This record gives sequence, C-alpha cells and structure tokens, in this order.
Amino acid sequence: MSSLTFPSDRPYDLICLGRLCIDLNANEINRPMEKTQSFTKYVGGSPANIAIGAARLQLKTGFIGKIADDPHGRFIRQYLTQHQIDHSQVRIDQTGAVTGLSFTEIKSPEDCSIVMYRDHVADLLLHSDEISEDYIKQTKALLISGTALAQSPSREAVFTALHYARKHQVVVFFDLDYRPYTWRSDAETAIYYQLAAEKCDVMIGTREEFDMMEHLELTDGSNEETAKYWFAHQAQIIVIKHGQAGSVSYTRDGKHFSSTIFPTKVLKTFGAGDAYASAFIYSLLQGWDVETAMEYGSASAAIVISKHSCSDAMPTTFEIDHFIKMAKHEKEHQL
Amino acid sequence: MSSLTFPSDRPYDLICLGRLCIDLNANEINRPMEKTQSFTKYVGGSPANIAIGAARLQLKTGFIGKIADDPHGRFIRQYLTQHQIDHSQVRIDQTGAVTGLSFTEIKSPEDCSIVMYRDHVADLLLHSDEISEDYIKQTKALLISGTALAQSPSREAVFTALHYARKHQVVVFFDLDYRPYTWRSDAETAIYYQLAAEKCDVMIGTREEFDMMEHLELTDGSNEETAKYWFAHQAQIIVIKHGQAGSVSYTRDGKHFSSTIFPTKVLKTFGAGDAYASAFIYSLLQGWDVETAMEYGSASAAIVISKHSCSDAMPTTFEIDHFIKMAKHEKEHQL
Amino acid sequence: MSSLTFPSDRPYDLICLGRLCIDLNANEINRPMEKTQSFTKYVGGSPANIAIGAARLQLKTGFIGKIADDPHGRFIRQYLTQHQIDHSQVRIDQTGAVTGLSFTEIKSPEDCSIVMYRDHVADLLLHSDEISEDYIKQTKALLISGTALAQSPSREAVFTALHYARKHQVVVFFDLDYRPYTWRSDAETAIYYQLAAEKCDVMIGTREEFDMMEHLELTDGSNEETAKYWFAHQAQIIVIKHGQAGSVSYTRDGKHFSSTIFPTKVLKTFGAGDAYASAFIYSLLQGWDVETAMEYGSASAAIVISKHSCSDAMPTTFEIDHFIKMAKHEKEHQL
Amino acid sequence: MSSLTFPSDRPYDLICLGRLCIDLNANEINRPMEKTQSFTKYVGGSPANIAIGAARLQLKTGFIGKIADDPHGRFIRQYLTQHQIDHSQVRIDQTGAVTGLSFTEIKSPEDCSIVMYRDHVADLLLHSDEISEDYIKQTKALLISGTALAQSPSREAVFTALHYARKHQVVVFFDLDYRPYTWRSDAETAIYYQLAAEKCDVMIGTREEFDMMEHLELTDGSNEETAKYWFAHQAQIIVIKHGQAGSVSYTRDGKHFSSTIFPTKVLKTFGAGDAYASAFIYSLLQGWDVETAMEYGSASAAIVISKHSCSDAMPTTFEIDHFIKMAKHEKEHQL
Repeated sequence: MSSLTFPSDRPYDLICLGRLCIDLNANEINRPMEKTQSFTKYVGGSPANIAIGAARLQLKTGFIGKIADDPHGRFIRQYLTQHQIDHSQVRIDQTGAVTGLSFTEIKSPEDCSIVMYRDHVADLLLHSDEISEDYIKQTKALLISGTALAQSPSREAVFTALHYARKHQVVVFFDLDYRPYTWRSDAETAIYYQLAAEKCDVMIGTREEFDMMEHLELTDGSNEETAKYWFAHQAQIIVIKHGQAGSVSYTRDGKHFSSTIFPTKVLKTFGAGDAYASAFIYSLLQGWDVETAMEYGSASAAIVISKHSCSDAMPTTFEIDHFIKMAKHEKEHQL
Repeated sequence: MSSLTFPSDRPYDLICLGRLCIDLNANEINRPMEKTQSFTKYVGGSPANIAIGAARLQLKTGFIGKIADDPHGRFIRQYLTQHQIDHSQVRIDQTGAVTGLSFTEIKSPEDCSIVMYRDHVADLLLHSDEISEDYIKQTKALLISGTALAQSPSREAVFTALHYARKHQVVVFFDLDYRPYTWRSDAETAIYYQLAAEKCDVMIGTREEFDMMEHLELTDGSNEETAKYWFAHQAQIIVIKHGQAGSVSYTRDGKHFSSTIFPTKVLKTFGAGDAYASAFIYSLLQGWDVETAMEYGSASAAIVISKHSCSDAMPTTFEIDHFIKMAKHEKEHQL
Repeated sequence: MSSLTFPSDRPYDLICLGRLCIDLNANEINRPMEKTQSFTKYVGGSPANIAIGAARLQLKTGFIGKIADDPHGRFIRQYLTQHQIDHSQVRIDQTGAVTGLSFTEIKSPEDCSIVMYRDHVADLLLHSDEISEDYIKQTKALLISGTALAQSPSREAVFTALHYARKHQVVVFFDLDYRPYTWRSDAETAIYYQLAAEKCDVMIGTREEFDMMEHLELTDGSNEETAKYWFAHQAQIIVIKHGQAGSVSYTRDGKHFSSTIFPTKVLKTFGAGDAYASAFIYSLLQGWDVETAMEYGSASAAIVISKHSCSDAMPTTFEIDHFIKMAKHEKEHQL
Repeated sequence: MSSLTFPSDRPYDLICLGRLCIDLNANEINRPMEKTQSFTKYVGGSPANIAIGAARLQLKTGFIGKIADDPHGRFIRQYLTQHQIDHSQVRIDQTGAVTGLSFTEIKSPEDCSIVMYRDHVADLLLHSDEISEDYIKQTKALLISGTALAQSPSREAVFTALHYARKHQVVVFFDLDYRPYTWRSDAETAIYYQLAAEKCDVMIGTREEFDMMEHLELTDGSNEETAKYWFAHQAQIIVIKHGQAGSVSYTRDGKHFSSTIFPTKVLKTFGAGDAYASAFIYSLLQGWDVETAMEYGSASAAIVISKHSCSDAMPTTFEIDHFIKMAKHEKEHQL
C-alpha cells in the first residue's frame, strides 16, 4: 500500500497540465536526420503522453493546456477526443502562436536526438486566469510537468494550479521533465523547480534532473539526501531514475525500493519516462504498493521503447500484464 | 518583547535588498509638474530609504542591489558610503542599463503623484548568481521589497536570497511596496507575492497591498483573516497600515495592537512607509515590544512627511525621541 | 531581345538572396491537414526554389543566405551541393535559430494552404556585415525576395546587397513574394518594398502584391499606372501575374505583352511563381525576347504544379521544350 | 542667392519632424554630475530646438511628433503653444511610453556629457499612419532628424514623410544628428541614413556624422568626395561642420564656401548645431546666399553656447544681427 491518500468521490482520476505538441518521427531510422526523407506525425509532449498512457489504462483523465488555432492544434484535440481525455480546459490560443514540434532523429537505439520548435508556442501561453479552481477540485490527482515552468505566463499558471490543488487536497505528481532549451539559466531553473517541488506530493525524475533542481542547495547529490530534503517539505514519494540501472524510490515513512528495467528490443529511448509515469500513477491510484507500481511503470516503459511512437504506443493493462507475465516466464526458463 | 528571535553574533543588523533609485523632487510645490521648473536630486527607492533610515538609527546596515554605471549610480554609491551603509554587494551594471527615476509632483499635501522611469533599470537586473550566501548569513535581519519581485532576473535574486536567509535563520522582513507599473497582471503579482510571503517572518503593507497579494485566495479582506492565513505559514508579525486611521498589527501568539498617527504639518506623503518600516525594524532589533515599535515607526513617519525629501529626512533616535516627547506633551496640554 | 543588358565575363549568371527553408508536404492529399499522417521533406522558400530552378536550367547559380546549425540546415546545404549551387555565402547561424518550415495542406487543387514556422528562423538573421561586395560583383544578375525585407537584420542585408549590385551594374530581379505573416503592418510593408523596388531592374509579382507595395501612392491600381510609376525609377521590365488569367509585362520602351497559362492537370498551386521566375530569368539571360521568356516561364510553372514538390520538380530545358512542343501539338490537333 | 527654390503660397515655412524631449541641465556647473544637487528643466531634442529657433526667428513653424501622456509631455506642448509652434500633428501616446530625458553634465566648457533616457520613449513611437500628407503639402520646407530613423515605427514615419515631401515639392533639410546609443549597429545606421539622404535637398552634419553615413561606400572621407557622392542623388547643398575650425558648404552648381566660428565665452557646447541649423534654414528661406546663411548660423550658435539652456536661449533676429555687428566691430578695433 502506498503512503498516499487520494480523495474519493471525484469525477477525474488524473488531470495533466502542460504541453501538447506534435512529434514528427523520421520514418527512416538508424541514420542522421539530414538523410531522412519523411516523417510520421504523432501527438507528443511529456504530460500529453502521460495523459494518453493514463487513458489507455482506463483512468478518467482530463487535461489543462493550450493549443494553437491551426491544423496541428486541431489534430491534437481530435486525438484527445478519440482517447476519451476531457479537453474542456484545453484553451485555443488566439494570438497566432504555433504548435510545438519535436523532430526525432534515431541514429541508433542509443543515439537519439531531437530538433525542437519551441518559439512562440501555444502551450507556454497558458495563463493563470485560465486555471479553473472548480476543475481542479474535481480530480484525485494532478500531474504537472517541469517544462511548463520554463516561461511566463505558463509558469504562473502552474503555480496557480498548485495553489488550488493544495487547497482541495488533490495529490500532486511532479514529472520533472527538464528540457534545457526552454530555460534561460541554471539558477532560474533551480529556483522555480524548488518553489514548485515544495508543494508536490510525488516527484519523478532522473538523477540528473534532481541534481539540476537541487544545485543551489545540496552537496553530495546522493539519493538519500534528495529524499531527506524533500520529505522536510510536502513530499510523500520520491522516484529517481537511473537509466539502464533502473530506478529507486523513497517513501516518507523511511522505506526505499529498487527496481530493474525489463530487457526488450529497443527502437528508441523517447517516451520511456512518460510510459513509466502513467503506469506508476495508475498503480498508486489502484492502491497498489510502491514496489508494484515501479514494476508496472518499468514494464510500460519497456513496451513503448520498442515501438516507433510515444503516444500511440502507450499500452493497455492487458498489454502490461501480458508483458510482465512473459518476461517472468522467460526469466524463469533462462534459469 | 516581540515574538522574534534574532540570531546574535552577526556583524550586520539589517541588510536591505532591492532598488536604489533617484528621486527628483520638484522645488516648486503645490502645483502640477508642468508648472515646475527645477528639481532637487535625492537617493530614493523604498529599500534604499529603509536602509538609510536604519543607518541613521545606528543600525549596522548593508545593501544588496545593482546600480547603473553612470553619474546617477555613482551619486547613489557615494551617498551610501557617506551613511556608512556597506555597498560591497551593490553590483555595477555593465549592460547599459539606466538608473530608475521618480519625479515627484506635489499638488497639495493630499494630492501627490509620481512620474516613474522604470524601463531597463539597473536594479531589476540583479541576478541570482550575484546573491552571496556568505553575505546573507552575516546579518540578523533581511528586508526585501515587493518591487524587486516584479521582473526577472531580480525576481529570482529575491527567491535566492530568501532561500539563503531561511537556511541561516535570518529574520526576514517583507515590505510589500506594491507598484502597479512594473507588473504585467494582478494574477502574476499575487502569485509571486504569495510565494515570497510564505517564507517571511514579518510583513508590512497597506490594506490595499495585502488585498492585492491575497486576491486569489481570501474572500472577506479582513485583517483577522489576513493574519490567520499567514500565521499558517512562516509569519510571526503582520503589520497592516490604514493611512490616516493608523495601523494594526498581529502577532503569532494571537495578540493584536492598534496605533494612531501623530499629527504633523504634512508637506507630502511620500516616504511615510519607509520611515515607519526603518524605525519599526530598529525597535524590534532593540528587543522592544510590538506596540512600542509601532509608535516609534509612526513618529518617524510623521517627521519625514513634513520635509521635502524621503531619504535625506530620515530621523535619528534623538529626533524621534524628542518628537514623541513633544507630541505627548502637546497632547497632555490640550487635555 | 529584352531591354536588359547583362554584364559579361562574370562567373555567376544568377545569385539568389533570401530564405532557405524546409517544406513538409502532406503525403495524403485532398484532405485537411488534421487528417494527414505523414509528410515528405523538401528544400523550400521562394528564392531557394528559384535558385534550384535556375540550376536545373544550367545557369551558374549562387546563393546568399543563412541556415540553422541543425539537421534541417545540413539537409539544405547538402541539397544545394547536389545541385551545383554555390553555397560559399550561405552562413551558418550560431545563435540557436531554427530552420523555417512550411507544412502544406492540399485540400483540393484550388484550396491549398500553409502552416508556417517563422519565429526565430535563421534566414531572417542574415546580417548586412555578411554581404560580400566581392561576391556580388561576380554575378550577372541578383534575385532578391520581398520576404527577406520583413525583419531586421535581414532587411538591412537586402539593402546592402542592392547597394553593391547597383554599384557593380548587376541586373537586379525583385520577386515580390509578399507573405503577410512576417510583416507587422501594411504601411511598413509598402515603405520597405518601395525603397527596395526603386533600386531594381525587373519586378515580378501578382497584381495583389503590386497593390500592397503601391498602396501609399497609386489610386487606380491599373497595370499601366504601375508600369509608369516604376519606369520613373530604375525599372526596365515589370511582370504582373493574374493567376488563371495569365500574366502581362511592360518594358521601359513602352511595349507590353500578354501571356496565357498552359492547361495542365493541377495537383497544387504552390511553386508556380518560383518556376515561372526561374525560367523567365533564364530566358532573358539567353537574350531571348520578353514574350518568349513569358511563355517559357508559364510552361515551367505548368510542369511544377502537376507534381508533389516545388524544388524537386523544377524542370530542365529539355522538359520545358518538350512540354511546350506537346502543348502546341495538342492545341493544333484540337483545332 | 541659394540654389534652392521653395514653393510659395504655403502656410508653413518649416515643419520639423522628430523628437521632443526634456533637458535637465545641472544648475551647478564645472563639476561631475554626481556632485550636482539640482537641475533645471527645458524642452529639448534637436528638431525641437530647431523648431524653437525657427519660431524665434519668426518663421511659421509646425511640428510632427509624439509626446508622452504625462506632465513632461504636457510641459512640452505648453511650451510649443507659447512659442506659436503648431502642434496639431504632435500626437499623444496612449501606450504608457515616457518622455525622453537628457541630463547634461558640464564639467568644463570643453568637457560636456549627457545621460540619456531613451528606452520606451514616446517620440520613437510616431507611426507612419500618423503622418498627414495634407499637412506636409502645406509647408515650404521639412526638417528631418537622423535620430528619428533609429527605431521602428518612427523610422517608417520618416520615410513616409519623405515620400510625401518629394511628391509635393517640399524642400527637405536633413539634420544628421547621429546619436550612437539609439542604434544597434554601424551598418544599420549607414543603411537607413543613406536611404533617407538620397531623398533630401540639404544635409547638415559634422564630418564624423558624414563619415558614419558613408562608411559602406566612400574611401577617402574628404568633403569633396562627400559632396560629389550626394550631388549624384537629390542633394542641392551640403554643409559639413568641423567644430572649432568652422564649417564648409558645397552647392550643386560646383561652388563651395567656408565659414569660421565667432569667438564667444563658452558655457557649454550643447545646442550649437541646432542654433546653427535654425538660423541657416531661416536665411535660405529669406533668399539669402549660402555664405550669408552660414554666417547667420554661426552667430546663432555662438549666442546659444554662452547660455545655460539650448531651447530657451535661441536668439531672435535682433539678437543675431546685434551679435554680428558687435563681433565685426570688435574685430575691426583689434586690427
């Protein structure tokens, strides 16, 4: 059993806040992007992927964000509709902003990079006036993404949402999701990450992301120190990801857990974190214990990195259950 | 005795952080500015005035800020030197920023207004990298000014200073000092004021300033509600000013106090709040009780508003003591 | 024979100046973009297309521009190399700018639209310091594109290039190429178009583009008035395009010519103007008369609009000659 | 007789276009500004000073510009009214812009400097839509100031005014008035100065200002080359100022003239150029020859630099005539 208590009797299980973008994934893989000729279009953006993952797992999911008034924006909204994600709080920009883009380049499973279009994007124009207290109090959990803190007015929208979430006992998940290109300086990053993190219940990030957030403060960069620091604030659970080495988590009651990754045939590494987060959150909402939630997250991640897209590849419970069963079966037979 | 405990054995009593500007006060008063011909130059800016007031009262005072590399900036630095205010942490801008200006117009004692020059000013360019943890841990008290939160990178510099102050048990005073012209929206103002206020020990502001800070949250705008809300965070003392009607203060132990203003011949209203704050902080540092501190603040304010400048007019303890004595004498004789 | 005299003994026939972008053309046509799933990538941008068209026609071609330091930029440079277009004067941005993008949507042959990414693009960062007088004096003709006038510093780079072109008797072609989304106001557009047009020898644009350029000045919007106005400045030839109705041209010696379009199976209308311009310029450089040049331009346009891309579809002389021959043959047989 | 022909039957002799600012001149002179305590306020800005000078000389004068909606703006408008300068085309900014300021520091007659406030100033927000063709066609002469070219939208407003002036045979004076702090680069400066200068009849500037304008083009920087270059365009008269060494002028008919400065007791050097320009323009409008106009300009300059202000000190014809008479008398007696 997790140490979290979700409020009951609320229509939404999870509301995600932050960017809704377009991924353009090169159809020709294992080569540099200048040698590719065509791209397939998917909905993307870390909180978007998590929302889609959550919806696939049958959570009642909503989204707070802003999309451009253009064909890409309409594609995103249509995709949310198809996946039963409530988009009543996804605003449509009226100022000529564009949809954020990520062109992905897969040189090899280990060497993936991204060309980002993040200038004048609609998602960062979400305004604090557009955050509905009434909507936030209808959910058990809220997920915020660090990227939404990168610029005004989206930054203030996040703090407004956090304010309402705390006021109404909504459990807040913070997916650190640190993307250097949208931030002006490391100092600025650390300051706003810290101000937000002080108000969150669960934090999920890589070791490098925690280091960035804590660089004004902590000295040894150990997972133990990270956990101790944040438990002095609001945090209940801290999940720190170490890539191939798996992840570790700490709970406020002093326990910690390790999880390994599942072996799989990797096509690309994008989307692993989002798949992990959606399955981890799903598990905690089921009342499962943290260790089980970590395993469920790892399995979901293993599935997504073997496929071409991030959002489209998000698995169902059936797929995750089946994947875990097969993986265990295989492991036993290898022994 | 106040409910505050100041750390002992520190070289500075008070360090102020924020803007250092120039006031240009019309020499011809009781007329609109278009009818004036000449101006006298003074150091200005709310935290600058408070630092000067504190230095006049013999507090060991330091300043964290940024000045332009121009004659106005040199004038300010020279003035700090003359008043024994440490300016080792007053940086000199190297990017061509200008010194903030306030032209004051005194149409009548009740009708004073200001023409501000706040574009591309040096004080708002103070950067979080320029905040020295080592300096902050050398002071008993830190005063921050709300105006320094208005824009980046100064905004982040304030949060960095707050972070270090909390870490080293420095008592933090927050002079709300809300100036609409430097802010983009009410929502943005409320968000950053709140994030800062949650980390402060003493808050001083007008009822209107508290209303602005709390407008996302509170509903009835009463002083009691304000006090209750902030005592749920870090606050120890809340001082709410009501203009001619005097001020009220609340302490974390559940007490509250009222203070009236001293009658005086008013020349202009500028500077009253800064005079009040410096004398109030001085009193608490002496270990005096809140009620006495409020009276000392009111007396200092009454002295400043009867004179032409803000900074130059800041009184000494001798002047305040004498003023209070005379005022009481006069009151008795009127009875 | 045209009224233009090209300087002889110069290594380049034509140097184009302006944007080098990426076109992303939907693979699924005749539907709105939100219903498409994949895109094919081409080099795009009006002056890029004209340079590619010119190179296909065996002109010695160079380019002055700026590309992003990213995979899209490398793709563009590689494409120029493959087409023997000199890119020694194509600078590589070092400030983090992106490559301009055009997503094309082909709802029907008559209903085509574009989603543009033009924020912080490399091509508009070409700086006047990067214009080489020595390079410009090596060409017979220079083509400038109106879009390059939309923003600083590219705007100043165009005026610098015009200055050098005039100084060294380079014949200047002005492709009006007016794109509203990059301009702040109609007045600004008209002012800079006029200042540039006063220094050009040949102008090519639609009737609507000439109207925009002349709206501060002319009243009746007739082709005759347009021609008269510009012949009072530097202009030698004015070509005004009327879509389906063909084009008309005026020469400084008082003549004018009409040209109809060739019937073809239209896939999309993009690229027609660029194909026209490259073949028209080619013809004049051969010393052909204006009427023949217009026919050659129209044939080239008809070929490009029947194909999926703009740049890749630019025809060779063999293709144009063959197309004209077949079109005339067909016409005769219909009679 | 000058080589200029002014249109007759027009209600205005001279309309000036450009900045209207406030000068704050230190009352304490011969010391650095950080040692000064008070300032006197005057209307300032080069075209403002020229307009005031022209009005003092009884020319019918108008102004095209923009002022802030603040007490400084109202002071300026009131001053124009008092001097019978038409301000029907002086717009009032509604966007919160400020009035430009110049604090002058007079360390010695030879060492004067300025602290400028030029961020977000009203005068640079004059928009091309606010230029009235009908107003411009009512004047014999238009004076434009180079500073107005420094930024958009004022830059486009100048080109619009030039367009209308040429269309209606208004004689255009170009006071180069180059102020480095408002320009982004030397290349940008040269480009827009050249584009404007090509459309002007009379140019007045220092040798350094002509060098800046011509640095893309000319090589030897001689006055002869300057004159030759501009006579190939629209220019009729070129006046090049060499400080203490006096000035030289060239006329399109191949003549040139030298003028020395009048000895005077110099208080500060500010305003000399504006005084020169207003008296020079006045003289040409009287039909006087260029040599006489230069002498009249020099006398006016000598008067202004002996006084504390620029605008307030502009002389009347009586003062100039008397000054010249006395100067000649003195010279004769010295011989």
